[in-house]
Amino acid sequence: MPSEFELIRRHFGKPVQHAALGVGDDCALLALRPGMQLAVSTDMLVEGRHFLPTVAPQRLGHKALAVNLSDLAACGAKPLAFTLALALPRADEDFVAPFAQGLLALAAEHDIELIGGDTTRGPLNICITVLGEVPTGQALLRSGAQVGDDLWVSGVLGDARLALEVFRGTVSLSESAFEATRSAMEMPQPRVTLGLALRGVASSAIDLSDGLVGDLGHVLQRSGVGATIKLAALPRSAWLRDVAPAVQRECLLAGGDDYELLFTAPPSRHAAVQAAAQQARTPVHCVGRIDTGSALRVLDEAGAELPQTWRAFDHFSA
Amino acid sequence: MPSEFELIRRHFGKPVQHAALGVGDDCALLALRPGMQLAVSTDMLVEGRHFLPTVAPQRLGHKALAVNLSDLAACGAKPLAFTLALALPRADEDFVAPFAQGLLALAAEHDIELIGGDTTRGPLNICITVLGEVPTGQALLRSGAQVGDDLWVSGVLGDARLALEVFRGTVSLSESAFEATRSAMEMPQPRVTLGLALRGVASSAIDLSDGLVGDLGHVLQRSGVGATIKLAALPRSAWLRDVAPAVQRECLLAGGDDYELLFTAPPSRHAAVQAAAQQARTPVHCVGRIDTGSALRVLDEAGAELPQTWRAFDHFSA
Repeated sequence: MPSEFELIRRHFGKPVQHAALGVGDDCALLALRPGMQLAVSTDMLVEGRHFLPTVAPQRLGHKALAVNLSDLAACGAKPLAFTLALALPRADEDFVAPFAQGLLALAAEHDIELIGGDTTRGPLNICITVLGEVPTGQALLRSGAQVGDDLWVSGVLGDARLALEVFRGTVSLSESAFEATRSAMEMPQPRVTLGLALRGVASSAIDLSDGLVGDLGHVLQRSGVGATIKLAALPRSAWLRDVAPAVQRECLLAGGDDYELLFTAPPSRHAAVQAAAQQARTPVHCVGRIDTGSALRVLDEAGAELPQTWRAFDHFSA
Repeated sequence: MPSEFELIRRHFGKPVQHAALGVGDDCALLALRPGMQLAVSTDMLVEGRHFLPTVAPQRLGHKALAVNLSDLAACGAKPLAFTLALALPRADEDFVAPFAQGLLALAAEHDIELIGGDTTRGPLNICITVLGEVPTGQALLRSGAQVGDDLWVSGVLGDARLALEVFRGTVSLSESAFEATRSAMEMPQPRVTLGLALRGVASSAIDLSDGLVGDLGHVLQRSGVGATIKLAALPRSAWLRDVAPAVQRECLLAGGDDYELLFTAPPSRHAAVQAAAQQARTPVHCVGRIDTGSALRVLDEAGAELPQTWRAFDHFSA
């Protein structure tokens, strides 16, 4: 069995190209360009909470980095580098090799590199910290939403949750529909390019990890505003559109694991939002507006207000 | 039972003072001063590997941050901020409150702040990423040791391992000696001030986390040199001096969890090393020298070479 050091060197030991110093010393060293702030985010993934034991290691490697890049995207930050801490039940090359492959492929897509980390034996746990840069003062924050702003989301919502319901046995889908939703759950595409394009356009942003209602709640709370969402306007896939209305609602409003961007912008920037979306080749939809007060109202297809029964996915109360 | 968000806010939700933006958004934002490089290190702690289930949560909070700060110390970097990702079996305030207290007390000592992170339910796992700054080009690296350099260590070695042996039942100590060694194991003091004072003085440095022989091996390999250590010169506590010679050797050479600095400097900088140690109020001892070749030789009290039976603590082969 290869040792920890050897296993890591073999699969993660690529020499760094941008960073001043990468894996193998006590710290990694990184330079920031003048006028830039560092953006930092850390996410920890645990089996049974953030992924199912059935996920292919390559997809898990992708997802572990993707959910972190999604946080940078929500801030409009350009990814620079990341660290990886990994607890593994055993030094299992059959896991580590494809895991590294999936992770490093996504890293290469975003032109970022692994600059350090840690490996230990323990119950499977993946902790990634991403580092990015954003021009000082230009980061997209949760606190910037203004009354009267339009509320936008990228992509489609609810597919990851729909796949989870198939795994749970509460919904059945055709094989092709299941594969598509499963890809949404296991291989989310972080909206980094859209986040960059929205700098100077969006007034606030957050990435959708815990479900629309819960994550929008963070924006409302931080911005001191309320909002109205139109259920009919929420973008959804053909397969989600085919399932029972109650399941659709749950997936759209409280799905989680979407990793789309939810953002606000003044109506006067409507064309600028569309231009940013086009530049990023990412579809966006206007799904509501920011109101006075602090309430979140969800209107059904007939324009009637739904009772407020959804809440954020809370990892300790689920 | 408090929710995840509430638990975190209650115990970790101090507003940031230095960072541009702290806990509560998708990313934290941090400015670097001109001429500085960012130093980054990530360590993951798992029960049974890095700490025993008997450790008090307050001490565990201290240790989790201390081992990370020790990496910055080894680079001569000034700590700025850190992120914390925490997997907990349940939202247990009796654990989180003292854990946060121990962690934030050490953070306050070093004038750094928690700027972000993640909490989830799962087998206990603590992952911290520390961020520091170092003037460009001045970081202490593992690769800088030169033939003829003196080899130095800070503090004393082996006490943490000695405490572990007591827990394992292979050694017995008086109650006061046990408490002292247990503190060494559970409350290591990162040598941050010494690391800063050694910039421009030491030619290489590493922190001792896996044991002297193993960690020195990293320096030798990266620097392309060999070394000779004199066993008699290794600094040790009064209680370690009292135990059987074979246990002493094991604790000194392969103990692990020391979190002292191992560094090299040319003999011409002897006085400068002493001055740095005095400035940092940290004892240092010269324990050997850097040789040509690639071998690590350990000389016993009579000057005879010991057989090479120690190796780094490898988390997957232990």
